[in-house]
Amino acid sequence: MKLGFIGLGRMGFHMVERLLKHKVKVVAYNRSPEKVKKIAREGAIPAYSVEELIDKLPGKKIVWLMLPAGKATDSMMKKVLQLLNKGDIIVDGANDFYKNAERHDRLCKKQGIFFFDCGVSGGIWGLKNGYTIMVGGPKNQFKYVEPFVKALSAKGGYGYFGTAGAGHFVKSVHNIIEYVYLQGIAEGVELLNGFKQPIDIVKATSVWQPASVVNSWLMDLTNVALKRPDFKNISPKIGSVTIDELRKTAKSVKAYAPAFEIAAKIRQDRSKKFILGKRVIAATRREFGGHAVKKK
Amino acid sequence: MKLGFIGLGRMGFHMVERLLKHKVKVVAYNRSPEKVKKIAREGAIPAYSVEELIDKLPGKKIVWLMLPAGKATDSMMKKVLQLLNKGDIIVDGANDFYKNAERHDRLCKKQGIFFFDCGVSGGIWGLKNGYTIMVGGPKNQFKYVEPFVKALSAKGGYGYFGTAGAGHFVKSVHNIIEYVYLQGIAEGVELLNGFKQPIDIVKATSVWQPASVVNSWLMDLTNVALKRPDFKNISPKIGSVTIDELRKTAKSVKAYAPAFEIAAKIRQDRSKKFILGKRVIAATRREFGGHAVKKK
Repeated sequence: MKLGFIGLGRMGFHMVERLLKHKVKVVAYNRSPEKVKKIAREGAIPAYSVEELIDKLPGKKIVWLMLPAGKATDSMMKKVLQLLNKGDIIVDGANDFYKNAERHDRLCKKQGIFFFDCGVSGGIWGLKNGYTIMVGGPKNQFKYVEPFVKALSAKGGYGYFGTAGAGHFVKSVHNIIEYVYLQGIAEGVELLNGFKQPIDIVKATSVWQPASVVNSWLMDLTNVALKRPDFKNISPKIGSVTIDELRKTAKSVKAYAPAFEIAAKIRQDRSKKFILGKRVIAATRREFGGHAVKKK
Repeated sequence: MKLGFIGLGRMGFHMVERLLKHKVKVVAYNRSPEKVKKIAREGAIPAYSVEELIDKLPGKKIVWLMLPAGKATDSMMKKVLQLLNKGDIIVDGANDFYKNAERHDRLCKKQGIFFFDCGVSGGIWGLKNGYTIMVGGPKNQFKYVEPFVKALSAKGGYGYFGTAGAGHFVKSVHNIIEYVYLQGIAEGVELLNGFKQPIDIVKATSVWQPASVVNSWLMDLTNVALKRPDFKNISPKIGSVTIDELRKTAKSVKAYAPAFEIAAKIRQDRSKKFILGKRVIAATRREFGGHAVKKK
Protein backbone atom coordinates (compact mmCIF):
# COMPACT_ATOMS: atom_id res chain seq x y z
CA MET A 1 0.00 0.00 0.00
CA LYS A 2 1.63 3.20 -1.19
CA LEU A 3 -0.26 6.41 -1.78
CA GLY A 4 0.80 9.58 -3.55
CA PHE A 5 -0.55 12.59 -1.64
CA ILE A 6 -0.57 16.14 -2.98
CA GLY A 7 -1.47 19.05 -0.72
CA LEU A 8 -0.33 19.36 2.89
CA GLY A 9 -2.63 22.16 3.98
CA ARG A 10 -4.80 22.31 7.10
CA MET A 11 -6.66 19.13 6.13
CA GLY A 12 -4.04 17.32 4.06
CA PHE A 13 -1.21 17.42 6.57
CA HIS A 14 -3.28 15.79 9.30
CA MET A 15 -4.65 13.23 6.85
CA VAL A 16 -1.13 12.10 5.95
CA GLU A 17 -0.28 11.93 9.64
CA ARG A 18 -3.24 9.64 10.18
CA LEU A 19 -2.25 7.44 7.22
CA LEU A 20 1.29 7.15 8.61
CA LYS A 21 -0.07 6.21 12.03
CA HIS A 22 -1.94 3.40 10.25
CA LYS A 23 1.29 2.14 8.64
CA VAL A 24 0.37 3.37 5.17
CA LYS A 25 3.37 4.36 3.00
CA VAL A 26 2.78 7.87 1.71
CA VAL A 27 4.77 9.78 -0.88
CA ALA A 28 3.94 13.41 -0.08
CA TYR A 29 4.26 16.55 -2.16
CA ASN A 30 3.34 20.13 -1.36
CA ARG A 31 4.03 23.38 -3.22
CA SER A 32 6.01 24.79 -0.30
CA PRO A 33 8.82 22.34 0.57
CA GLU A 34 8.76 23.15 4.32
CA LYS A 35 5.63 21.05 4.78
CA VAL A 36 7.21 18.19 2.81
CA LYS A 37 10.26 18.24 5.08
CA LYS A 38 8.01 18.35 8.12
CA ILE A 39 5.91 15.35 7.08
CA ALA A 40 9.06 13.44 6.05
CA ARG A 41 10.25 13.76 9.64
CA GLU A 42 7.05 11.95 10.62
CA GLY A 43 7.79 9.09 8.24
CA ALA A 44 6.44 10.12 4.83
CA ILE A 45 8.53 9.66 1.68
CA PRO A 46 9.24 13.21 0.54
CA ALA A 47 8.73 14.43 -3.02
CA TYR A 48 9.81 17.93 -4.03
CA SER A 49 8.09 17.87 -7.40
CA VAL A 50 5.04 16.16 -8.88
CA GLU A 51 7.38 14.21 -11.18
CA GLU A 52 9.35 12.91 -8.21
CA LEU A 53 6.10 11.87 -6.49
CA ILE A 54 4.94 9.89 -9.54
CA ASP A 55 8.39 8.27 -9.91
CA LYS A 56 8.27 7.03 -6.34
CA LEU A 57 4.92 5.25 -6.77
CA PRO A 58 4.56 1.56 -7.77
CA GLY A 59 3.02 0.06 -10.93
CA LYS A 60 -0.65 0.98 -10.48
CA LYS A 61 -0.35 4.47 -9.10
CA ILE A 62 -2.90 6.17 -6.82
CA VAL A 63 -2.65 9.93 -6.31
CA TRP A 64 -4.80 11.74 -3.71
CA LEU A 65 -5.31 15.46 -4.33
CA MET A 66 -6.10 17.52 -1.24
CA LEU A 67 -6.10 21.07 -2.61
CA PRO A 68 -8.60 23.90 -2.65
CA ALA A 69 -11.36 23.26 -5.19
CA GLY A 70 -11.18 25.33 -8.37
CA LYS A 71 -7.97 26.48 -10.05
CA ALA A 72 -5.56 24.73 -7.69
CA THR A 73 -7.25 21.35 -8.09
CA ASP A 74 -7.96 21.77 -11.83
CA SER A 75 -4.41 22.67 -12.80
CA MET A 76 -2.85 20.01 -10.58
CA MET A 77 -5.13 17.41 -12.08
CA LYS A 78 -3.98 18.35 -15.59
CA LYS A 79 -0.37 18.10 -14.52
CA VAL A 80 -0.84 14.73 -12.81
CA LEU A 81 -2.78 13.37 -15.81
CA GLN A 82 0.22 14.06 -18.07
CA LEU A 83 2.37 11.86 -15.85
CA LEU A 84 0.02 8.95 -15.14
CA ASN A 85 -0.60 5.84 -17.20
CA LYS A 86 -3.76 4.04 -18.22
CA GLY A 87 -5.28 2.22 -15.24
CA ASP A 88 -3.87 4.62 -12.62
CA ILE A 89 -6.18 6.37 -10.16
CA ILE A 90 -6.72 9.99 -9.12
CA VAL A 91 -8.67 10.75 -5.92
CA ASP A 92 -9.94 14.27 -5.30
CA GLY A 93 -10.64 15.04 -1.63
CA ALA A 94 -11.49 18.74 -2.07
CA ASN A 95 -14.78 20.29 -1.03
CA ASP A 96 -16.02 20.67 -4.60
CA PHE A 97 -19.30 21.00 -6.47
CA TYR A 98 -20.26 17.51 -7.65
CA LYS A 99 -20.55 18.62 -11.28
CA ASN A 100 -16.85 19.42 -11.22
CA ALA A 101 -16.22 15.82 -10.15
CA GLU A 102 -18.23 14.70 -13.18
CA ARG A 103 -16.09 16.97 -15.39
CA HIS A 104 -12.87 15.67 -13.83
CA ASP A 105 -14.12 12.14 -14.40
CA ARG A 106 -14.67 12.81 -18.11
CA LEU A 107 -11.18 14.32 -18.36
CA CYS A 108 -9.61 11.27 -16.69
CA LYS A 109 -11.65 8.79 -18.73
CA LYS A 110 -10.20 10.18 -21.96
CA GLN A 111 -6.82 8.88 -20.84
CA GLY A 112 -8.08 5.67 -19.29
CA ILE A 113 -7.42 7.00 -15.78
CA PHE A 114 -9.91 6.23 -13.01
CA PHE A 115 -11.29 9.13 -11.00
CA PHE A 116 -12.71 9.12 -7.46
CA ASP A 117 -14.28 12.03 -5.60
CA CYS A 118 -14.02 11.67 -1.84
CA GLY A 119 -15.82 14.16 0.36
CA VAL A 120 -13.92 14.41 3.64
CA SER A 121 -15.45 15.64 6.90
CA GLY A 122 -13.80 15.85 10.28
CA GLY A 123 -11.99 19.16 10.18
CA ILE A 124 -9.03 19.47 12.46
CA TRP A 125 -10.33 16.57 14.60
CA GLY A 126 -10.02 13.90 11.94
CA LEU A 127 -6.43 13.07 12.86
CA LYS A 128 -7.52 11.99 16.32
CA ASN A 129 -11.10 10.77 15.80
CA GLY A 130 -10.89 9.60 12.20
CA TYR A 131 -12.50 11.27 9.21
CA THR A 132 -15.85 10.71 7.57
CA ILE A 133 -15.36 9.93 3.88
CA MET A 134 -18.05 9.81 1.20
CA VAL A 135 -16.86 8.18 -2.01
CA GLY A 136 -17.90 8.39 -5.67
CA GLY A 137 -16.17 6.68 -8.60
CA PRO A 138 -15.91 3.46 -10.57
CA LYS A 139 -17.17 0.68 -8.31
CA ASN A 140 -14.88 -2.04 -9.59
CA GLN A 141 -11.82 0.09 -8.81
CA PHE A 142 -12.91 1.00 -5.27
CA LYS A 143 -10.98 -1.96 -3.84
CA TYR A 144 -7.72 -0.14 -4.66
CA VAL A 145 -8.78 3.06 -2.90
CA GLU A 146 -10.66 1.52 0.02
CA PRO A 147 -7.64 0.60 2.20
CA PHE A 148 -6.55 4.26 2.27
CA VAL A 149 -10.10 5.50 2.87
CA LYS A 150 -10.49 2.97 5.67
CA ALA A 151 -7.22 4.01 7.35
CA LEU A 152 -8.31 7.65 7.24
CA SER A 153 -11.84 7.06 8.53
CA ALA A 154 -13.36 6.61 11.94
CA LYS A 155 -14.75 3.11 12.43
CA GLY A 156 -17.85 2.87 10.24
CA GLY A 157 -17.22 6.38 8.91
CA TYR A 158 -16.93 5.85 5.17
CA GLY A 159 -19.15 4.69 2.36
CA TYR A 160 -19.20 4.23 -1.40
CA PHE A 161 -22.19 6.07 -2.85
CA GLY A 162 -22.07 5.79 -6.64
CA THR A 163 -20.25 6.92 -9.76
CA ALA A 164 -18.27 10.17 -10.06
CA GLY A 165 -19.97 13.07 -8.30
CA ALA A 166 -21.75 10.99 -5.66
CA GLY A 167 -18.97 11.52 -3.11
CA HIS A 168 -18.87 15.30 -3.36
CA PHE A 169 -22.68 15.37 -3.54
CA VAL A 170 -23.18 13.47 -0.29
CA LYS A 171 -20.49 15.62 1.34
CA SER A 172 -22.30 18.79 0.19
CA VAL A 173 -25.57 17.52 1.66
CA HIS A 174 -23.70 16.83 4.89
CA ASN A 175 -22.49 20.44 4.89
CA ILE A 176 -25.99 21.69 4.17
CA ILE A 177 -27.21 19.85 7.28
CA GLU A 178 -24.31 21.36 9.23
CA TYR A 179 -25.44 24.85 8.14
CA VAL A 180 -28.94 24.17 9.46
CA TYR A 181 -27.75 22.64 12.75
CA LEU A 182 -25.57 25.67 13.45
CA GLN A 183 -28.42 27.99 12.51
CA GLY A 184 -30.58 26.15 15.05
CA ILE A 185 -27.97 26.53 17.77
CA ALA A 186 -27.52 30.21 16.88
CA GLU A 187 -31.27 30.89 17.03
CA GLY A 188 -31.38 29.10 20.38
CA VAL A 189 -28.59 31.24 21.77
CA GLU A 190 -30.27 34.40 20.48
CA LEU A 191 -33.51 33.38 22.19
CA LEU A 192 -31.77 32.65 25.49
CA ASN A 193 -30.03 35.98 25.24
CA GLY A 194 -33.29 37.81 24.57
CA PHE A 195 -35.10 36.53 27.66
CA LYS A 196 -36.16 39.00 30.33
CA GLN A 197 -34.16 37.05 32.92
CA PRO A 198 -30.42 36.78 32.27
CA ILE A 199 -29.89 33.15 31.22
CA ASP A 200 -26.47 31.52 31.59
CA ILE A 201 -25.89 30.40 28.00
CA VAL A 202 -22.74 28.44 28.79
CA LYS A 203 -24.67 26.52 31.42
CA ALA A 204 -27.56 25.84 29.02
CA THR A 205 -25.32 24.46 26.26
CA SER A 206 -23.47 22.47 28.89
CA VAL A 207 -26.62 20.95 30.43
CA TRP A 208 -27.82 19.99 26.92
CA GLN A 209 -24.70 17.92 26.21
CA PRO A 210 -24.98 14.65 28.15
CA ALA A 211 -28.45 13.42 27.28
CA SER A 212 -30.80 16.02 25.78
CA VAL A 213 -32.49 15.61 22.40
CA VAL A 214 -30.19 18.29 20.94
CA ASN A 215 -26.94 16.72 22.08
CA SER A 216 -24.51 16.74 19.18
CA TRP A 217 -20.88 17.33 18.39
CA LEU A 218 -21.72 20.87 17.26
CA MET A 219 -23.39 21.56 20.62
CA ASP A 220 -20.27 20.30 22.41
CA LEU A 221 -18.11 22.59 20.28
CA THR A 222 -20.44 25.55 20.80
CA ASN A 223 -20.04 25.06 24.52
CA VAL A 224 -16.25 24.97 24.14
CA ALA A 225 -16.30 28.06 21.93
CA LEU A 226 -18.46 30.05 24.37
CA LYS A 227 -16.09 29.25 27.23
CA ARG A 228 -12.94 30.48 25.48
CA PRO A 229 -11.63 33.74 26.93
CA ASP A 230 -11.36 35.24 23.43
CA PHE A 231 -15.04 34.59 22.59
CA LYS A 232 -15.85 38.19 23.45
CA ASN A 233 -13.53 39.33 20.66
CA ILE A 234 -15.02 37.19 17.91
CA SER A 235 -16.62 39.14 15.11
CA PRO A 236 -20.01 38.26 13.57
CA LYS A 237 -18.42 38.05 10.10
CA ILE A 238 -18.63 34.37 9.23
CA GLY A 239 -16.31 32.83 6.64
CA SER A 240 -18.01 30.77 3.91
CA VAL A 241 -15.64 28.85 1.63
CA THR A 242 -18.13 26.36 0.23
CA ILE A 243 -21.36 28.34 0.26
CA ASP A 244 -21.64 28.71 -3.52
CA GLU A 245 -21.15 24.97 -4.10
CA LEU A 246 -23.77 24.19 -1.48
CA ARG A 247 -26.29 26.57 -3.02
CA LYS A 248 -25.65 25.16 -6.49
CA THR A 249 -26.02 21.64 -5.10
CA ALA A 250 -29.35 22.43 -3.43
CA LYS A 251 -30.69 24.13 -6.56
CA SER A 252 -29.52 21.42 -8.94
CA VAL A 253 -31.73 18.76 -7.38
CA LYS A 254 -34.78 21.03 -7.08
CA ALA A 255 -35.41 19.82 -3.55
CA TYR A 256 -37.08 22.05 -0.97
CA ALA A 257 -34.41 23.25 1.47
CA PRO A 258 -35.72 26.49 3.01
CA ALA A 259 -33.92 26.25 6.36
CA PHE A 260 -30.64 25.84 4.49
CA GLU A 261 -31.47 28.95 2.42
CA ILE A 262 -31.91 30.90 5.62
CA ALA A 263 -28.73 29.54 7.15
CA ALA A 264 -26.78 30.42 3.99
CA LYS A 265 -28.19 33.95 3.99
CA ILE A 266 -27.21 34.47 7.62
CA ARG A 267 -23.64 33.39 6.93
CA GLN A 268 -23.24 36.24 4.46
CA ASP A 269 -25.34 38.74 6.35
CA ARG A 270 -23.37 41.81 7.42
CA SER A 271 -26.27 43.67 9.03
CA LYS A 272 -26.59 44.55 12.70
CA LYS A 273 -29.13 41.82 13.38
CA PHE A 274 -28.48 38.35 14.84
CA ILE A 275 -25.05 39.48 16.06
CA LEU A 276 -24.66 36.97 18.89
CA GLY A 277 -25.98 34.17 16.69
CA LYS A 278 -23.47 34.98 13.96
CA ARG A 279 -20.64 35.18 16.47
CA VAL A 280 -21.58 31.76 17.83
CA ILE A 281 -21.56 30.30 14.30
CA ALA A 282 -18.14 31.84 13.57
CA ALA A 283 -16.70 30.64 16.87
CA THR A 284 -18.07 27.10 16.51
CA ARG A 285 -16.79 26.81 12.93
CA ARG A 286 -13.34 27.57 14.28
CA GLU A 287 -13.65 24.70 16.75
CA PHE A 288 -14.36 22.02 14.16
CA GLY A 289 -12.63 23.32 11.09
CA GLY A 290 -9.91 25.62 12.31
CA HIS A 291 -11.63 28.25 10.18
CA ALA A 292 -10.19 31.68 10.77
CA VAL A 293 -12.34 34.08 12.74
CA LYS A 294 -12.29 37.83 12.44
CA LYS A 295 -11.54 39.78 15.58
CA LYS A 296 -13.92 42.57 16.48
CA MET B 1 -35.75 12.01 50.72
CA LYS B 2 -39.39 11.39 49.87
CA LEU B 3 -41.12 12.80 46.80
CA GLY B 4 -44.80 12.97 45.94
CA PHE B 5 -45.23 12.26 42.23
CA ILE B 6 -48.45 12.83 40.30
CA GLY B 7 -48.83 11.56 36.73
CA LEU B 8 -47.56 8.19 35.55
CA GLY B 9 -47.86 8.72 31.81
CA ARG B 10 -45.26 8.05 29.13
CA MET B 11 -42.74 10.36 30.77
CA GLY B 12 -43.80 10.17 34.42
CA PHE B 13 -43.77 6.41 34.81
CA HIS B 14 -40.18 6.10 33.62
CA MET B 15 -39.13 9.06 35.75
CA VAL B 16 -40.43 7.36 38.88
CA GLU B 17 -38.67 4.16 37.84
CA ARG B 18 -35.42 6.09 37.60
CA LEU B 19 -35.97 7.72 41.01
CA LEU B 20 -36.60 4.29 42.54
CA LYS B 21 -33.41 2.93 40.93
CA HIS B 22 -31.59 5.78 42.68
CA LYS B 23 -33.07 4.81 46.05
CA VAL B 24 -35.44 7.76 46.24
CA LYS B 25 -38.65 7.10 48.13
CA VAL B 26 -41.58 8.05 45.93
CA VAL B 27 -45.25 8.30 46.80
CA ALA B 28 -46.96 7.92 43.43
CA TYR B 29 -50.47 8.85 42.31
CA ASN B 30 -52.12 8.53 38.92
CA ARG B 31 -55.74 9.01 37.83
CA SER B 32 -56.00 5.42 36.63
CA PRO B 33 -55.06 3.11 39.52
CA GLU B 34 -53.52 0.41 37.26
CA LYS B 35 -50.40 2.50 36.82
CA VAL B 36 -50.20 3.08 40.58
CA LYS B 37 -50.36 -0.66 41.21
CA LYS B 38 -47.73 -1.25 38.55
CA ILE B 39 -45.27 1.28 39.97
CA ALA B 40 -45.94 0.00 43.51
CA ARG B 41 -44.70 -3.40 42.36
CA GLU B 42 -41.44 -1.65 41.45
CA GLY B 43 -41.10 -0.19 44.92
CA ALA B 44 -43.09 3.05 44.96
CA ILE B 45 -45.43 3.86 47.82
CA PRO B 46 -48.89 3.80 46.22
CA ALA B 47 -51.47 6.55 46.65
CA TYR B 48 -54.97 6.13 45.24
CA SER B 49 -56.01 9.71 45.81
CA VAL B 50 -54.26 13.06 46.00
CA GLU B 51 -55.25 13.25 49.66
CA GLU B 52 -53.57 9.93 50.35
CA LEU B 53 -50.43 11.08 48.54
CA ILE B 54 -50.20 14.24 50.66
CA ASP B 55 -50.84 12.28 53.87
CA LYS B 56 -47.94 9.99 53.10
CA LEU B 57 -45.41 12.81 52.70
CA PRO B 58 -43.23 14.15 55.55
CA GLY B 59 -43.22 17.61 57.16
CA LYS B 60 -41.97 19.77 54.29
CA LYS B 61 -43.76 18.25 51.35
CA ILE B 62 -42.54 18.23 47.76
CA VAL B 63 -45.00 17.30 45.01
CA TRP B 64 -43.86 16.78 41.42
CA LEU B 65 -46.58 17.17 38.75
CA MET B 66 -45.96 15.36 35.49
CA LEU B 67 -49.19 15.94 33.61
CA PRO B 68 -50.07 17.43 30.24
CA ALA B 69 -49.77 21.22 30.27
CA GLY B 70 -53.04 23.12 30.33
CA LYS B 71 -56.22 21.95 32.01
CA ALA B 72 -54.79 18.77 33.54
CA THR B 73 -51.89 20.60 35.19
CA ASP B 74 -53.93 23.68 36.14
CA SER B 75 -56.71 21.79 37.89
CA MET B 76 -54.33 19.39 39.66
CA MET B 77 -52.31 22.34 40.90
CA LYS B 78 -55.43 23.91 42.41
CA LYS B 79 -56.29 20.64 44.12
CA VAL B 80 -52.77 20.12 45.49
CA LEU B 81 -52.61 23.73 46.70
CA GLN B 82 -55.70 23.13 48.86
CA LEU B 83 -53.89 20.32 50.63
CA LEU B 84 -50.41 21.77 51.07
CA ASN B 85 -49.10 23.97 53.85
CA LYS B 86 -46.96 27.10 53.84
CA GLY B 87 -43.36 26.26 52.94
CA ASP B 88 -44.22 23.17 50.89
CA ILE B 89 -43.05 22.86 47.28
CA ILE B 90 -44.77 22.12 43.96
CA VAL B 91 -42.65 21.16 40.95
CA ASP B 92 -44.19 21.24 37.47
CA GLY B 93 -42.37 19.07 34.91
CA ALA B 94 -44.82 19.57 32.03
CA ASN B 95 -43.84 20.99 28.65
CA ASP B 96 -45.51 24.32 29.27
CA PHE B 97 -45.28 27.91 28.05
CA TYR B 98 -43.07 29.78 30.51
CA LYS B 99 -45.70 32.43 31.18
CA ASN B 100 -47.93 29.71 32.64
CA ALA B 101 -45.11 28.90 35.05
CA GLU B 102 -45.07 32.55 36.08
CA ARG B 103 -48.84 32.38 36.63
CA HIS B 104 -48.54 29.16 38.64
CA ASP B 105 -45.83 30.80 40.70
CA ARG B 106 -48.10 33.75 41.56
CA LEU B 107 -50.84 31.31 42.51
CA CYS B 108 -48.51 29.36 44.80
CA LYS B 109 -46.99 32.49 46.35
CA LYS B 110 -50.41 33.61 47.56
CA GLN B 111 -50.40 30.58 49.87
CA GLY B 112 -46.73 30.72 50.77
CA ILE B 113 -46.04 27.63 48.65
CA PHE B 114 -42.83 27.50 46.59
CA PHE B 115 -43.13 26.74 42.88
CA PHE B 116 -40.52 25.24 40.54
CA ASP B 117 -40.81 24.73 36.79
CA CYS B 118 -38.60 21.93 35.53
CA GLY B 119 -38.30 21.36 31.79
CA VAL B 120 -37.54 17.69 31.23
CA SER B 121 -35.90 16.33 28.07
CA GLY B 122 -34.93 12.77 27.34
CA GLY B 123 -38.10 11.22 26.04
CA ILE B 124 -38.41 7.50 26.41
CA TRP B 125 -34.62 7.21 26.79
CA GLY B 126 -34.36 9.14 30.03
CA LEU B 127 -34.88 6.09 32.21
CA LYS B 128 -31.70 4.51 30.86
CA ASN B 129 -29.54 7.53 29.95
CA GLY B 130 -30.80 10.03 32.51
CA TYR B 131 -32.89 13.09 31.76
CA THR B 132 -31.91 16.66 31.03
CA ILE B 133 -33.61 19.00 33.49
CA MET B 134 -33.80 22.78 33.27
CA VAL B 135 -34.96 24.40 36.49
CA GLY B 136 -36.65 27.68 37.39
CA GLY B 137 -37.86 28.71 40.85
CA PRO B 138 -36.82 30.27 44.17
CA LYS B 139 -33.05 29.82 44.40
CA ASN B 140 -32.89 29.44 48.17
CA GLN B 141 -35.35 26.51 48.00
CA PHE B 142 -33.54 24.69 45.20
CA LYS B 143 -31.56 22.65 47.72
CA TYR B 144 -34.74 20.74 48.60
CA VAL B 145 -35.53 19.89 44.98
CA GLU B 146 -31.98 19.31 43.75
CA PRO B 147 -31.51 15.75 45.10
CA PHE B 148 -34.52 14.57 43.08
CA VAL B 149 -33.44 16.48 39.97
CA LYS B 150 -29.95 15.04 40.30
CA ALA B 151 -31.23 11.46 40.63
CA LEU B 152 -33.34 11.93 37.50
CA SER B 153 -30.62 13.56 35.41
CA ALA B 154 -27.75 12.26 33.36
CA LYS B 155 -24.39 13.26 34.87
CA GLY B 156 -24.03 17.01 34.27
CA GLY B 157 -27.49 17.12 32.74
CA TYR B 158 -29.32 19.60 34.95
CA GLY B 159 -29.07 23.27 35.75
CA TYR B 160 -30.81 26.01 37.73
CA PHE B 161 -31.54 28.95 35.40
CA GLY B 162 -33.48 31.56 37.35
CA THR B 163 -36.82 32.37 38.95
CA ALA B 164 -40.15 30.85 37.88
CA GLY B 165 -40.45 30.50 34.11
CA ALA B 166 -36.73 30.10 33.45
CA GLY B 167 -36.94 26.30 33.46
CA HIS B 168 -39.78 26.01 30.96
CA PHE B 169 -38.21 28.79 28.90
CA VAL B 170 -34.85 27.05 28.53
CA LYS B 171 -36.66 23.80 27.76
CA SER B 172 -38.69 25.54 25.05
CA VAL B 173 -35.52 26.93 23.49
CA HIS B 174 -34.10 23.41 23.57
CA ASN B 175 -37.18 22.18 21.69
CA ILE B 176 -36.86 25.02 19.19
CA ILE B 177 -33.32 23.87 18.44
CA GLU B 178 -34.61 20.29 18.10
CA TYR B 179 -37.13 21.49 15.50
CA VAL B 180 -34.35 23.10 13.47
CA TYR B 181 -32.00 20.10 13.74
CA LEU B 182 -34.72 17.76 12.50
CA GLN B 183 -35.59 20.17 9.72
CA GLY B 184 -31.91 20.08 8.67
CA ILE B 185 -31.85 16.30 8.65
CA ALA B 186 -35.13 16.21 6.69
CA GLU B 187 -33.82 18.67 4.08
CA GLY B 188 -30.66 16.58 3.78
CA VAL B 189 -32.66 13.41 3.21
CA GLU B 190 -34.83 15.17 0.62
CA LEU B 191 -31.71 16.34 -1.22
CA LEU B 192 -30.16 12.87 -1.20
CA ASN B 193 -33.43 11.48 -2.48
CA GLY B 194 -33.61 14.06 -5.27
CA PHE B 195 -30.18 13.27 -6.74
CA LYS B 196 -29.96 11.85 -10.24
CA GLN B 197 -28.08 8.83 -8.93
CA PRO B 198 -29.92 6.71 -6.35
CA ILE B 199 -28.21 7.44 -3.05
CA ASP B 200 -28.42 4.96 -0.18
CA ILE B 201 -29.88 7.20 2.53
CA VAL B 202 -29.49 4.66 5.32
CA LYS B 203 -25.81 4.34 4.43
CA ALA B 204 -25.36 8.14 4.38
CA THR B 205 -26.93 8.66 7.81
CA SER B 206 -24.91 5.71 9.07
CA VAL B 207 -21.56 7.01 7.72
CA TRP B 208 -22.30 10.40 9.29
CA GLN B 209 -22.64 8.93 12.78
CA PRO B 210 -19.17 8.11 14.09
CA ALA B 211 -17.20 11.30 13.42
CA SER B 212 -18.80 13.74 10.96
CA VAL B 213 -19.63 17.34 11.81
CA VAL B 214 -23.34 16.47 11.83
CA ASN B 215 -23.09 13.56 14.23
CA SER B 216 -25.80 13.90 16.85
CA TRP B 217 -28.28 11.87 18.77
CA LEU B 218 -31.02 12.87 16.34
CA MET B 219 -28.89 11.60 13.42
CA ASP B 220 -28.41 8.28 15.24
CA LEU B 221 -32.16 8.02 15.78
CA THR B 222 -32.92 8.98 12.17
CA ASN B 223 -30.69 6.13 11.09
CA VAL B 224 -32.54 3.75 13.42
CA ALA B 225 -35.91 5.02 12.18
CA LEU B 226 -35.00 4.60 8.51
CA LYS B 227 -33.91 1.02 9.10
CA ARG B 228 -37.17 -0.09 10.74
CA PRO B 229 -39.23 -2.38 8.53
CA ASP B 230 -42.33 -0.24 9.16
CA PHE B 231 -40.69 2.99 7.96
CA LYS B 232 -42.37 2.58 4.59
CA ASN B 233 -45.77 2.80 6.30
CA ILE B 234 -45.11 6.01 8.21
CA SER B 235 -47.29 8.91 7.19
CA PRO B 236 -46.00 12.47 6.61
CA LYS B 237 -48.47 13.81 9.19
CA ILE B 238 -46.28 14.96 12.06
CA GLY B 239 -47.67 15.34 15.56
CA SER B 240 -46.97 18.65 17.29
CA VAL B 241 -47.97 18.81 20.95
CA THR B 242 -45.86 21.80 21.96
CA ILE B 243 -45.78 23.84 18.76
CA ASP B 244 -47.99 26.67 20.03
CA GLU B 245 -45.92 27.10 23.20
CA LEU B 246 -42.74 27.20 21.15
CA ARG B 247 -44.13 29.79 18.75
CA LYS B 248 -45.33 31.93 21.64
CA THR B 249 -41.94 31.58 23.30
CA ALA B 250 -40.05 32.66 20.17
CA LYS B 251 -42.38 35.62 19.63
CA SER B 252 -42.33 36.76 23.22
CA VAL B 253 -38.60 37.50 23.21
CA LYS B 254 -38.65 39.18 19.80
CA ALA B 255 -35.56 37.27 18.71
CA TYR B 256 -34.94 36.38 15.08
CA ALA B 257 -35.65 32.66 14.62
CA PRO B 258 -36.46 32.16 10.94
CA ALA B 259 -35.27 28.55 10.62
CA PHE B 260 -37.51 27.62 13.54
CA GLU B 261 -40.44 29.34 11.81
CA ILE B 262 -39.84 27.18 8.76
CA ALA B 263 -39.47 24.02 10.81
CA ALA B 264 -42.72 24.78 12.65
CA LYS B 265 -44.55 25.41 9.38
CA ILE B 266 -43.36 22.10 7.94
CA ARG B 267 -44.61 20.21 10.99
CA GLN B 268 -48.14 21.38 10.30
CA ASP B 269 -47.90 21.25 6.52
CA ARG B 270 -50.35 18.79 4.98
CA SER B 271 -49.45 19.49 1.34
CA LYS B 272 -47.88 17.02 -1.07
CA LYS B 273 -44.45 18.60 -0.84
CA PHE B 274 -41.52 17.49 1.31
CA ILE B 275 -43.19 14.12 1.89
CA LEU B 276 -40.05 12.09 2.61
CA GLY B 277 -38.69 14.87 4.84
CA LYS B 278 -41.91 14.96 6.85
CA ARG B 279 -41.96 11.18 7.17
CA VAL B 280 -38.38 11.24 8.46
CA ILE B 281 -39.31 13.88 11.07
CA ALA B 282 -42.34 11.83 12.19
CA ALA B 283 -40.33 8.61 12.37
CA THR B 284 -37.43 10.19 14.28
CA ARG B 285 -39.79 11.84 16.77
CA ARG B 286 -41.15 8.41 17.54
CA GLU B 287 -37.62 7.18 18.29
CA PHE B 288 -36.86 9.78 20.94
CA GLY B 289 -40.24 10.60 22.34
CA GLY B 290 -42.39 7.58 21.67
CA HIS B 291 -44.65 10.04 19.82
CA ALA B 292 -47.38 8.24 17.95
CA VAL B 293 -46.99 8.13 14.18
CA LYS B 294 -49.80 7.91 11.70
CA LYS B 295 -49.78 4.97 9.34
CA LYS B 296 -50.16 5.71 5.65
